Amino acid sequence: MAVPFRPTPRTRVKRIHERGRYDRETVYAILDAGVICHVGYVIDGHPYVTPTSYWRHGDLLYWHGSSASRMLRHLKQEVPACVEVTHFDGFVLARSGFHHSINYRSVMALGTARLVPDDEKLVALEDFVERLFPGRWGELRPPTRQEVKATTVLRMALEEVSAKVRTGPPKDDEEDYALPIWAGVLPVTTLVGAPQPDPRLEADTPLPSYLNRSAEPAS
Amino acid sequence: MAVPFRPTPRTRVKRIHERGRYDRETVYAILDAGVICHVGYVIDGHPYVTPTSYWRHGDLLYWHGSSASRMLRHLKQEVPACVEVTHFDGFVLARSGFHHSINYRSVMALGTARLVPDDEKLVALEDFVERLFPGRWGELRPPTRQEVKATTVLRMALEEVSAKVRTGPPKDDEEDYALPIWAGVLPVTTLVGAPQPDPRLEADTPLPSYLNRSAEPAS
Repeated sequence: MAVPFRPTPRTRVKRIHERGRYDRETVYAILDAGVICHVGYVIDGHPYVTPTSYWRHGDLLYWHGSSASRMLRHLKQEVPACVEVTHFDGFVLARSGFHHSINYRSVMALGTARLVPDDEKLVALEDFVERLFPGRWGELRPPTRQEVKATTVLRMALEEVSAKVRTGPPKDDEEDYALPIWAGVLPVTTLVGAPQPDPRLEADTPLPSYLNRSAEPAS
Repeated sequence: MAVPFRPTPRTRVKRIHERGRYDRETVYAILDAGVICHVGYVIDGHPYVTPTSYWRHGDLLYWHGSSASRMLRHLKQEVPACVEVTHFDGFVLARSGFHHSINYRSVMALGTARLVPDDEKLVALEDFVERLFPGRWGELRPPTRQEVKATTVLRMALEEVSAKVRTGPPKDDEEDYALPIWAGVLPVTTLVGAPQPDPRLEADTPLPSYLNRSAEPAS
């Protein structure tokens, strides 16, 4: 068993504390099931939240983008950051409005992102593509030096991290269970659909095996 | 036609500016298609991002939760906030790694949230439930005074707002279109599944008509 993350005053789940999780297995599973994170940062005292794709390698969380991006230009100065990943799993319908809820799995990671050095960028980007589409990196037109230069890759150590999870049916007040009100869960799932070829795709270009799969859960 | 939002230096989409949208129709449609937002705020100079459910009424964005929530206790002091809503619509697979992308619709709203006064809370919460499940509010066990007191509702005016949208196939370098590399879009959809009754549901409790629908797109 891996060592769990140590909750800090900033990451310990206080309200409904039984939803808090600090074990690496849970945190990794939530992160690895996702594609889009929300990155929080502060400019001139004002909070900003930017959605971006991310990937995990061990205890490092990576994200990337254009070197001209405001978010990346700011964060590469090694300022405080907060990364959030959320999976919305369902509506929880209770017998009172008060006990309505949401089923979800989320991770919050606090820390400082750092620039991935130039000589490690390509390995990191390959890791990102291969994680999503195993085998694709080798098929692509190779990156040019200019493209690599125009791309900023950041990574943040997973150190101050917590997960929060709600599953299952509503929890109503005991006396409300006898009421004739429908209660339960309306599940929500994210699906990857059938590949849609680029209208400009060369005729007879085969569908790669990593895309030849039926609809499956995504983020 | 409604008056568009006026882009500010903080909300104007600069990089790939053609993805920026400021018209109310687009912003409203993105907000109304979602359930979960990510709220950014600053405590002691550190950014935090908290996922929470939200709803829109006209040019006001609402969210709520336990009065004990750190996020709500902080934001009700009328400090700067950033609310982000993102729909992940697909993977965009190009012929080079560099032109891979994500199809998405997102909204960023900057502003200051304010407490909804006690005498308006119930109307706001009814609006939230009815927006999702028309007819449900009147069926529920009515809220108690204690429950209303334990719930904080915030709202923020939609003033400094922008949307960002990417749709369609990859945009490759012209000379790359001839390469025999599969390119296109892998669409991603969010679906609401069949209702799952609470194991403690009273026998013969009918499924309400607002839940009696087949799977449909959600957030």
